[in-house]
Amino acid sequence: MAYKDATLDQVDSALQQAQISFLSYKNISGKKKAEFLRAMADEIEALGQELVSTAIRETNLPEARIVGERGRTTGHCRMFADLVEQGSWVDARIDTAIPDRAPLPKPDIRKMLTPLGPVVVFGAANFPLAYSTAGGDTASALAAGCSVIVKAHPAHPDTSELVAGAIKKAMDKTGMPNGVFQHLHGSGFDVGQALVKHPLTKAVGFTGSLAGGKALFDLACQRPQPIPVFAEMSCINPVILLPETLSQQAEKTAGALAASITLGVGQFCTNPGLIVAIQNEGLDRFVKSLSEAIKNALPGTMLHQGIADNYNKRLAHSLEQKGVTIEGQSASDSNASQGKPSVASTLASTFLKNPLLAEEVFGPFSLVIKCKDINELHTVVSHLNGQLTASIFGDEVEVAKHSSLINTLVEKAGRLIVNGVPTGVEVCPSMNHGGPYPATTDSRFTAVGIDAIRRFVRPVAFQSFPDSLLPEELKNNNPLAIWRLYNNEWGRK
Amino acid sequence: MAYKDATLDQVDSALQQAQISFLSYKNISGKKKAEFLRAMADEIEALGQELVSTAIRETNLPEARIVGERGRTTGHCRMFADLVEQGSWVDARIDTAIPDRAPLPKPDIRKMLTPLGPVVVFGAANFPLAYSTAGGDTASALAAGCSVIVKAHPAHPDTSELVAGAIKKAMDKTGMPNGVFQHLHGSGFDVGQALVKHPLTKAVGFTGSLAGGKALFDLACQRPQPIPVFAEMSCINPVILLPETLSQQAEKTAGALAASITLGVGQFCTNPGLIVAIQNEGLDRFVKSLSEAIKNALPGTMLHQGIADNYNKRLAHSLEQKGVTIEGQSASDSNASQGKPSVASTLASTFLKNPLLAEEVFGPFSLVIKCKDINELHTVVSHLNGQLTASIFGDEVEVAKHSSLINTLVEKAGRLIVNGVPTGVEVCPSMNHGGPYPATTDSRFTAVGIDAIRRFVRPVAFQSFPDSLLPEELKNNNPLAIWRLYNNEWGRK
Repeated sequence: MAYKDATLDQVDSALQQAQISFLSYKNISGKKKAEFLRAMADEIEALGQELVSTAIRETNLPEARIVGERGRTTGHCRMFADLVEQGSWVDARIDTAIPDRAPLPKPDIRKMLTPLGPVVVFGAANFPLAYSTAGGDTASALAAGCSVIVKAHPAHPDTSELVAGAIKKAMDKTGMPNGVFQHLHGSGFDVGQALVKHPLTKAVGFTGSLAGGKALFDLACQRPQPIPVFAEMSCINPVILLPETLSQQAEKTAGALAASITLGVGQFCTNPGLIVAIQNEGLDRFVKSLSEAIKNALPGTMLHQGIADNYNKRLAHSLEQKGVTIEGQSASDSNASQGKPSVASTLASTFLKNPLLAEEVFGPFSLVIKCKDINELHTVVSHLNGQLTASIFGDEVEVAKHSSLINTLVEKAGRLIVNGVPTGVEVCPSMNHGGPYPATTDSRFTAVGIDAIRRFVRPVAFQSFPDSLLPEELKNNNPLAIWRLYNNEWGRK
Repeated sequence: MAYKDATLDQVDSALQQAQISFLSYKNISGKKKAEFLRAMADEIEALGQELVSTAIRETNLPEARIVGERGRTTGHCRMFADLVEQGSWVDARIDTAIPDRAPLPKPDIRKMLTPLGPVVVFGAANFPLAYSTAGGDTASALAAGCSVIVKAHPAHPDTSELVAGAIKKAMDKTGMPNGVFQHLHGSGFDVGQALVKHPLTKAVGFTGSLAGGKALFDLACQRPQPIPVFAEMSCINPVILLPETLSQQAEKTAGALAASITLGVGQFCTNPGLIVAIQNEGLDRFVKSLSEAIKNALPGTMLHQGIADNYNKRLAHSLEQKGVTIEGQSASDSNASQGKPSVASTLASTFLKNPLLAEEVFGPFSLVIKCKDINELHTVVSHLNGQLTASIFGDEVEVAKHSSLINTLVEKAGRLIVNGVPTGVEVCPSMNHGGPYPATTDSRFTAVGIDAIRRFVRPVAFQSFPDSLLPEELKNNNPLAIWRLYNNEWGRK
């Protein structure tokens, strides 16, 4: 179905409404917010097969993936419900008064995290459920106590409408203020730009291309009052293969990487786009095995024509670079809407000279970098931009020999993986889905897991407040029984 | 003494050195970093009277203030030493593997905060010790594991050199890598700009004017790889006087505010620049009493001629605005290097029409806004920009009646104070010294207290790492005995 783009007046009235509802929603208890988030999950599930079929139709993703992604979406709604119901996430810190301290009395000060205000969330093309309308940005912002305006991704507007309807039902059922969640369409850039520039917008969540994320970041920084943008954008998720281990498990490693490269037609932020190893017999076997697997892999229809066009253009451009050798491509026929699994290789010296080869090719493609020795491998790693992930394949003894490599990789990526592929992002407290630019616009935050809430909150200190006027989280008798740093001791007393 | 400005080559080599030292310093234990931070405090104290005399000479601040500020500076060095020695600040989160989970095994993931890299700190004019060379930005960045390059404030270069020398002695005594701390001079904008634009710089700390902070923020956002800037800049710290309480304590409140307005010649970020109240007999008595106190207050020599010129220019400009009445000015003679304590008043309707009246006048000046009723007072508060602090004078019963005012003030300021003046920033875990723009460039962080460390760190997750290869903070047996979220339970096991 075709939806009308929101007008500038509609954007303005959405923000006005978001601000009004924010001022009451922020004070609703964590328990009530948890009810709302759980009702969101329930209502999304209640959409049943209609949601699954619609998402399949609009994204070309297979049913199992959509069903899995729906589970992840309802899962994070319930995870954030648990978090805010328990309440310790506000990071309460209490220092009680010392009236007789010399030379000056010490006042009573108490601090907690509070929501930023209305948040604008951009639906992601590659996660029609888990990073779109009720995605991680929306769920974490609502959990924080922010109101949310989602701009639907134009590639899956019907899916977005269905989920928005479910959220609105959940709002009604749990008595949330009207306007806590709002949903707008915009096929071009105008609506998104107007949302980011609106003075009442206090933060932005985005998952998508470097060009898109950077444009929103720039707009947000150039506002009369700059606001934070968490944009998860672009990276190539390097995979380092250590030589001794590789010679023992070249074929097994190739199998794992082929599966990761082609998973979801390569349309994951964590797709392994770069494989770095030292030239030797083990690497030859690895490349041969990987190439075979890729030749046998089937092309898949991509999320939308724009993504397919972009993949095919960027892939062709990479493959035509001087010194790049095509190692394997899917042997099956493909059409212009599909992405053809492909691997290529080049020498480290070529890679180091050509910045284009370090750019993301969003789709089922990976480039193998052949290094002449460990020093050159180090140089390649040092040369990389910021990444969401970096993987090292090597057994414990061999990885231990390369601690300086890990020391460098920590500076490059938000998540390091030993003997595992980067795809598959676990939703849990220890997850970090973030990384230095251009992986994201601010490496200090994560888009996945409970800490995603921190993007949308700020501390507020209350000094010399009578107990009766303090928020529940900071009252003397700790009525919510949350963990607090009380006179420098952690406890729940 | 005159110091040569650093050349662009010196800036570059400082960053190269900062990067090299960072890569080893970050891995030094919290215990060793604590030794370094404590040695910094010891060496600053060992400078004795020379430091005090030099700072007095360069800033015109009185001895008691400099001695107090030295105590605050050594105090925060030791506070961060305690923090990193104890170690729980890294916010460790551990989720152990569930190999037999269906449909997919759950991997072991562990996360902790790690330092961003080389940090550039700009010395602040108004805190020659506590927010300059060994100030809160430097101490928190070093505690985080970052290397630091300080650009000395050109108004107190000798003080800065002395403190830099003390830090270097501390580095030598505790065996820190050469280049963990470096110190450069720059009289104009070139050195600062080059430091912020250098590709190896990973974050910036700044305390100063809106124009200065915004310029650095813009530079940082426009880099090929944008970096975070925490700039603490400009605000007017509104003080709300509730009518019933005011009528009972007009004179006492006036005395407290007069002292706060004139403290340190008004050269504090938390100086109360705006007083908002409802027109009535109590306010008349308050204004009379405040005016008397200000008339009797002495002009003071300001930090440097630029600040004095700026104060006198902005003060004159504010006082000549239509509808502004001078209520009281110091009756003593003053010269061009001094700031004359001054208070003025205007009607809320005038204030709301003239944005200039909401701008900071850095110095001993405050503007009283007379509102015709509580609704107009609400309108004034809603109209305010972001602030470091907001104070409300009122007894418990009266403040409770105005909970909607507090609800609004929370959106405007980083710290709310009941019946207290905003000056006097306690250094403790619950302190928040931050606030919405233009008070700072990112309201999600604080410049004071242990959480200031968060500005300079980012999370890194370690997935499927053998225990032997994990950082100490994340190892199974918790060798540092730090607080960790372990499978969603807080503990130190």
